Amino acid sequence: MEDIHGLLRSHRSIRKFYDEPLPDETLVAIVRSGQSAASSSNLQATTVIRVRQPETRARISELAGGQQQILTAGAFTVWCADLHRTKLACEMAGGTMTTGMTEQFIIATVDVALAAQNAVVAAEGMGYGICYIGAIRNDPQTVADLLELPDHVYPVFGLCFGLPAQDPEVKPRLPVEVVLKDDVYCDDDIELIRAYDETLRDYYRTRTEGTKDSSWTEEMARLVDGERRPHMREFLARRGFELR
Amino acid sequence: MEDIHGLLRSHRSIRKFYDEPLPDETLVAIVRSGQSAASSSNLQATTVIRVRQPETRARISELAGGQQQILTAGAFTVWCADLHRTKLACEMAGGTMTTGMTEQFIIATVDVALAAQNAVVAAEGMGYGICYIGAIRNDPQTVADLLELPDHVYPVFGLCFGLPAQDPEVKPRLPVEVVLKDDVYCDDDIELIRAYDETLRDYYRTRTEGTKDSSWTEEMARLVDGERRPHMREFLARRGFELR
Repeated sequence: MEDIHGLLRSHRSIRKFYDEPLPDETLVAIVRSGQSAASSSNLQATTVIRVRQPETRARISELAGGQQQILTAGAFTVWCADLHRTKLACEMAGGTMTTGMTEQFIIATVDVALAAQNAVVAAEGMGYGICYIGAIRNDPQTVADLLELPDHVYPVFGLCFGLPAQDPEVKPRLPVEVVLKDDVYCDDDIELIRAYDETLRDYYRTRTEGTKDSSWTEEMARLVDGERRPHMREFLARRGFELR
Repeated sequence: MEDIHGLLRSHRSIRKFYDEPLPDETLVAIVRSGQSAASSSNLQATTVIRVRQPETRARISELAGGQQQILTAGAFTVWCADLHRTKLACEMAGGTMTTGMTEQFIIATVDVALAAQNAVVAAEGMGYGICYIGAIRNDPQTVADLLELPDHVYPVFGLCFGLPAQDPEVKPRLPVEVVLKDDVYCDDDIELIRAYDETLRDYYRTRTEGTKDSSWTEEMARLVDGERRPHMREFLARRGFELR
């Protein structure tokens, strides 16, 4: 497993796939490897729903801003944080679940993310491409309705898998010095961030043949300007995640 | 990369490490591969703090219930969800960050988890063992104080890396049929969960030479009985994560 760094560092989101369904047994293997990720107290709060119905995929693609890869991926899956199963397990053992805690929400969300990333590494190790779809949270209630999710289950993100029909460049990341600190948080990264701004500007220019001219800080300013998905709090409360 | 499934499925938490510091360049390589995980809109909300000071490690070990691996691991790191850097970037580009949204909290938390799991796979691929430490959230305010975290940064979990000085069995997971669904959530898994209860009971019996006799549903009933870490909501609000 010498080339593990090479595999991980070659990740880029794939948004064009060959029109070929992912075999069932391949998705099972990928999800099975996903399950091997660490899980807080063995909670295993992850449920994965493979969306096969073309009309459901079309609805989700539409609410996610028209992302075509949701329609064309070999498999489109929705990764859910599932405390309904925990509640069931608890009741099977004669207990009662205390619901709605912020801590449970964190545990379940992290559980799903760890399992998903393991599944991503498995898929990419097999030569498939992937794309996370956070935009299912544009309208999480419709997603929950379409997938018939019970209370205490919320859709965290979508995940496309398939044979890549494109070979985009790897997007450069922040210098590791910005991200990894010794002992205490320190905040002297402005010069490194400015350098990254130029790296990313070059990347966008090359990739878009000059039509996109933007830096990281400019992208961030656009991203966090205004209330993003302000329905999430209320949506989660309705699902039984009151975040007390 | 044929054996990627084998690597991922051999994961188990390591709680005993050889007393040997992880070389700096190894941790840098691991974190660098962590950074290659997908990041929502390239937000890169992850900050990793390597805790070197023995007294800080001792304090964190104590508040995490006395977990010895925090003291003995080759590297002990705290993985933080960091929107302080985002705010800085936003201001560098002349913008203002809207803070406190639940959606931002989800994005940042998922970002950290994806990066951490990539780092875990990198470390395990190199033969190191790892252990996530969710229990830093027992007293997240003290952790934030020790690491001098600014507002809009919260410690999600700790992560130990090191040379394994034990070789525990892999913990069996729920049958994949319980976790992977077609098109809609369905709830007919009681028999599969009962079978898993027995699998896990055997695992605990074997591993503890008969002293631990418990099933998954019994573990879950204990886990979610009562308010777990009820300080988290208030702590996060103080950090600038109001979860609006």
